[in-house]
Amino acid sequence: MKLVLPPGMSPQRFDAAVKALQAAVGAGWVMTSDEDRDAYADIYAPGPETLWSASGAVAPSTVEEVQAVVRIANEHKLPLWTVARGKNLGYGTAAPRMPGCMVLDLGRMNRILEVDPELGYCVIEPGVGFIDLYEHIQREKLPLMMSVPGNGWGSVLGNALDHGIGYTPYGVHASNLCGMEVVLANGDVVRTGLGAMENNKAAHLFPFSYGPSWDQMFTQSNLGVVTKAGMWLMPEPETSVELNLEIPQAEDIAWVIDTLTPLRLNRIIDQSIFIPSWLGKMTILGQRKDFWDKPGAIPDWRVQELLKEHKLSYWNMQLRLYGEESVTKAKAAVVKAAFAPHLKTPIGERWWRKGDPTNVMDLTLGVPSAVPLQMGDWVGGRSAHMGFSPVVPATGKHVLDQMRRSRKIINDHDVDFYASFTIGGRFCNNVNMLMYDRDNDKQVETIKTLFNALIADAAAHGYAEYRTHLGWMDAISNTFGFNNHAMRRMTEQVKNTLDPNGILSPGKNGIWPSAYADQRGKALA
Amino acid sequence: MKLVLPPGMSPQRFDAAVKALQAAVGAGWVMTSDEDRDAYADIYAPGPETLWSASGAVAPSTVEEVQAVVRIANEHKLPLWTVARGKNLGYGTAAPRMPGCMVLDLGRMNRILEVDPELGYCVIEPGVGFIDLYEHIQREKLPLMMSVPGNGWGSVLGNALDHGIGYTPYGVHASNLCGMEVVLANGDVVRTGLGAMENNKAAHLFPFSYGPSWDQMFTQSNLGVVTKAGMWLMPEPETSVELNLEIPQAEDIAWVIDTLTPLRLNRIIDQSIFIPSWLGKMTILGQRKDFWDKPGAIPDWRVQELLKEHKLSYWNMQLRLYGEESVTKAKAAVVKAAFAPHLKTPIGERWWRKGDPTNVMDLTLGVPSAVPLQMGDWVGGRSAHMGFSPVVPATGKHVLDQMRRSRKIINDHDVDFYASFTIGGRFCNNVNMLMYDRDNDKQVETIKTLFNALIADAAAHGYAEYRTHLGWMDAISNTFGFNNHAMRRMTEQVKNTLDPNGILSPGKNGIWPSAYADQRGKALA
Repeated sequence: MKLVLPPGMSPQRFDAAVKALQAAVGAGWVMTSDEDRDAYADIYAPGPETLWSASGAVAPSTVEEVQAVVRIANEHKLPLWTVARGKNLGYGTAAPRMPGCMVLDLGRMNRILEVDPELGYCVIEPGVGFIDLYEHIQREKLPLMMSVPGNGWGSVLGNALDHGIGYTPYGVHASNLCGMEVVLANGDVVRTGLGAMENNKAAHLFPFSYGPSWDQMFTQSNLGVVTKAGMWLMPEPETSVELNLEIPQAEDIAWVIDTLTPLRLNRIIDQSIFIPSWLGKMTILGQRKDFWDKPGAIPDWRVQELLKEHKLSYWNMQLRLYGEESVTKAKAAVVKAAFAPHLKTPIGERWWRKGDPTNVMDLTLGVPSAVPLQMGDWVGGRSAHMGFSPVVPATGKHVLDQMRRSRKIINDHDVDFYASFTIGGRFCNNVNMLMYDRDNDKQVETIKTLFNALIADAAAHGYAEYRTHLGWMDAISNTFGFNNHAMRRMTEQVKNTLDPNGILSPGKNGIWPSAYADQRGKALA
Repeated sequence: MKLVLPPGMSPQRFDAAVKALQAAVGAGWVMTSDEDRDAYADIYAPGPETLWSASGAVAPSTVEEVQAVVRIANEHKLPLWTVARGKNLGYGTAAPRMPGCMVLDLGRMNRILEVDPELGYCVIEPGVGFIDLYEHIQREKLPLMMSVPGNGWGSVLGNALDHGIGYTPYGVHASNLCGMEVVLANGDVVRTGLGAMENNKAAHLFPFSYGPSWDQMFTQSNLGVVTKAGMWLMPEPETSVELNLEIPQAEDIAWVIDTLTPLRLNRIIDQSIFIPSWLGKMTILGQRKDFWDKPGAIPDWRVQELLKEHKLSYWNMQLRLYGEESVTKAKAAVVKAAFAPHLKTPIGERWWRKGDPTNVMDLTLGVPSAVPLQMGDWVGGRSAHMGFSPVVPATGKHVLDQMRRSRKIINDHDVDFYASFTIGGRFCNNVNMLMYDRDNDKQVETIKTLFNALIADAAAHGYAEYRTHLGWMDAISNTFGFNNHAMRRMTEQVKNTLDPNGILSPGKNGIWPSAYADQRGKALA
């Protein structure tokens, strides 16, 4: 991609900034060629990727280099866009919200600083990927089990900081963050929580500060650059059992949720419970054209045929229990008894014991994988996906209500309906994967119209998204309108005092610094 | 107490502020007589209570009145000190850190706005006490179980906001907060989390915002006035079993912790595990003079005699498991097996089933009580206590290390050693209750010297306090020195932008606004 400069920045000032960055991190780690910009583009962009074009990227390798970079950025008023490993697929990958930002790529900061198997935590840098940490734990034979999302080569911290989810008892990843090191926009280094005391022994164990606590302020955030953080890890259980449940029809989701949530709140089931619809399995079996070769959404009669042909149920659920064998057995019996009145098919049981092998499909045993990304190929062409991801109370009524409404809107736009629900406690993350061929202009336009319709409909019914693509960050932010957007106004007040030049990730999740206030709502897809 | 004005405030300006407050909330709810000030004094003050004297108190009853109060405070530059019910016993009760502050008493805001038994949460105002909420739940026969601290008439929100602890699986109270309404210093009302969307259905279910999350910033905080919040409540379990463990000697704490923490991390035990020493029991049996009538700490030989005489072990621990009977039984067997190699005495078992009666001693069944406050009478006279409360990693090594050092220092100061440890996950809250007669100047002086010695010693070994009395808020804050107090500097930068006149609780947990920067470190005990 050709160079796009940040708003209001002259080529001369940009060149001066690049030179200063080169001096700080080494010329090879400031990347500003057309090919470099391509490498940081959103490979799933719903529209021309130039809408979210970086001016380049800078990749520091130490906290001191990050400090130098933000100081230079302040001096030259160069806006940065922070990414960990830049694998935020479906939400923008490594690309910035505001065109012309320089990507602050923390991929080189990939040190695993500490892994404590006794108290179950690690301290890592943002460049550490799920696969890196997994391999370290395997190599050192540490009795710990990770929680991983669908994309194993993403960043452990980056995913947690963006409120990513996994499918073990540690599946609400942001809740595992404990004790951060953060470079502020002025170049100052802050350690949060008890780590604000030098050499504090509980810095990554106790989840609060003395005084106001800040860890969660640095999630989905442009208020600082997290350069390392503590993350809690689950001790490896003695045993685990997977219970396979076949749920025949879409609308069964209501009683499924009403059966599961009490089990979750009563701690019979500890995991974040992933309930994907049949289409997830189909994307692994082949491409859309293998099953339905007409345009428009697959009609329901064909869905029913496909379920029969491939012996699939609408929802296929792998519940997993973890722990001492006797306790796990008792829990499995309670789960089975709860489902017995509803199910005609028997519940499959697959035991795992410490030391047993795992495979790449064992996401619920913390094995990183990229198999779920296969859905990227569903529609064919240069295919891509976006996630429409509202948060819904974990009751059958709310889940069914949200599913019916979004299914209708998605079907009305002639797009395949592929939903999943993940119960993370009292709430469900509902992710609707919208798949499209990037080179099919009509499909791209449809996805954009559809996305706007989904946001508006959800907001009208009291549901909000937990995360979104760059193109809709402002649109989602606008739905949080209580008291004339009081929370956003407060966040932006904090933003402006901590980052007066607005150099850190302007526009992230709808938070705009004064310096770029005129960019709000611009460059929408 | 006589009127003490805020620093730099003239009597005329104070009178004008009082008049404006009277007009806003009604004359009867602005309290400025000597007797009123007495009512808001620290009844346990280690030193003259005038050190922490309020100028009066104002008690609004609605969020609109809170907004009016902070607007008036800004106009007249009247500093406020926010309390919920003002029962922060041992940490300052209702008294302000800076003399002359007007107490902003939220006790009248005592509405229970919502209790949802299906998803296990409530939405309440700060004036709701543990007993209030308990009685509501009993009266409405809601299948919910609370988590309560030692003082049942304190505020549910106030306790959680100050990082208070209880002894059920919901014992880390601040972690149960979800979705707040906050009045900022400028009078603006913010709703945090998904509640920033009007009528959002998951406002008290999903623990994050879209963008930076703020709930934990408003804990131990002077950055806003929390006027209502969601709190998660545990569904009432089908059964519960209490396991009684007698741990003979003080130093056994090391293997006790090393046995318990893996059970906690493996979710065999879900509760916050309270491990109090023998002295807790003794304070209920009588006063110090009934058992030892000489000055100075009770010597170890007499401690051993008392343990024998009263058939007490050094640590008496009630573990509690909650849940389905079959699962609870399996868990109890695992716990017993883990302790079997260590214990000579059998483990007592006491079952409770839904519908069984509870009593005032059943803190671990969420029954609010004030029995633990009995320790206030231990030393006789106008007796009082302070808590020295470091956070320690939940390993035997760290806990033993901290106990040995603090016990020696406490004994060296001729004060009785009364420790408890509560395992809240990967950490222990170690609370050392220091009991004294407020009218015995020597005892008060000793407690002050002792407290300083304990703080310095803990910090030198890498342990920090999670909470402290008004008199030591700056001293503890000073121990968080990383990068020239970077976290405090950041917090104060946020403070100054959100509260430029410094009207909200100046000095709370060592956070001083510019307006009162010269007060830091003053008025120490």
